[in-house]
Amino acid sequence: MCKVNIYITLKEAVLDPQGKAISDSLKDLKYEGVGDVRVGKYLQMEMEQTDNMEEQIEEMCKRLLANPVIEDYTYTIEEVV
Amino acid sequence: MCKVNIYITLKEAVLDPQGKAISDSLKDLKYEGVGDVRVGKYLQMEMEQTDNMEEQIEEMCKRLLANPVIEDYTYTIEEVV
Repeated sequence: MCKVNIYITLKEAVLDPQGKAISDSLKDLKYEGVGDVRVGKYLQMEMEQTDNMEEQIEEMCKRLLANPVIEDYTYTIEEVV
Repeated sequence: MCKVNIYITLKEAVLDPQGKAISDSLKDLKYEGVGDVRVGKYLQMEMEQTDNMEEQIEEMCKRLLANPVIEDYTYTIEEVV
């Protein structure tokens, strides 16, 4: 069994109102050094190790997990012994 | 300036209906090898480098970014040259 970590983020050109709201709130709480904040999704998925595992993960991201129009995705695979 | 990556996840004891829905959907799409899925937030934050930066990040997470009752947080700091 493996642990797959998937990071789904908005494409750079896409405005992030949620991130802007967080950044503004942090400044209101006197954290002056904070700049831009971008909010994304972090998925932790258990998955059986197979030869075409990476291909399957790419497919899953494209078909279900990420919206290809506005989101990018990256992932890492950890072997769980 | 630094880039702080913050990972906010539900505590293990907390049920994750969103994760369950994703896991079920992936199985419906014939990805049989998929097991448990947990959904969390991934924040990318620009921040000025200061001596008490880690202390500030911990404070931000506790005060605003993560709900300490049901969520855990971890973070990494990358130096942006």
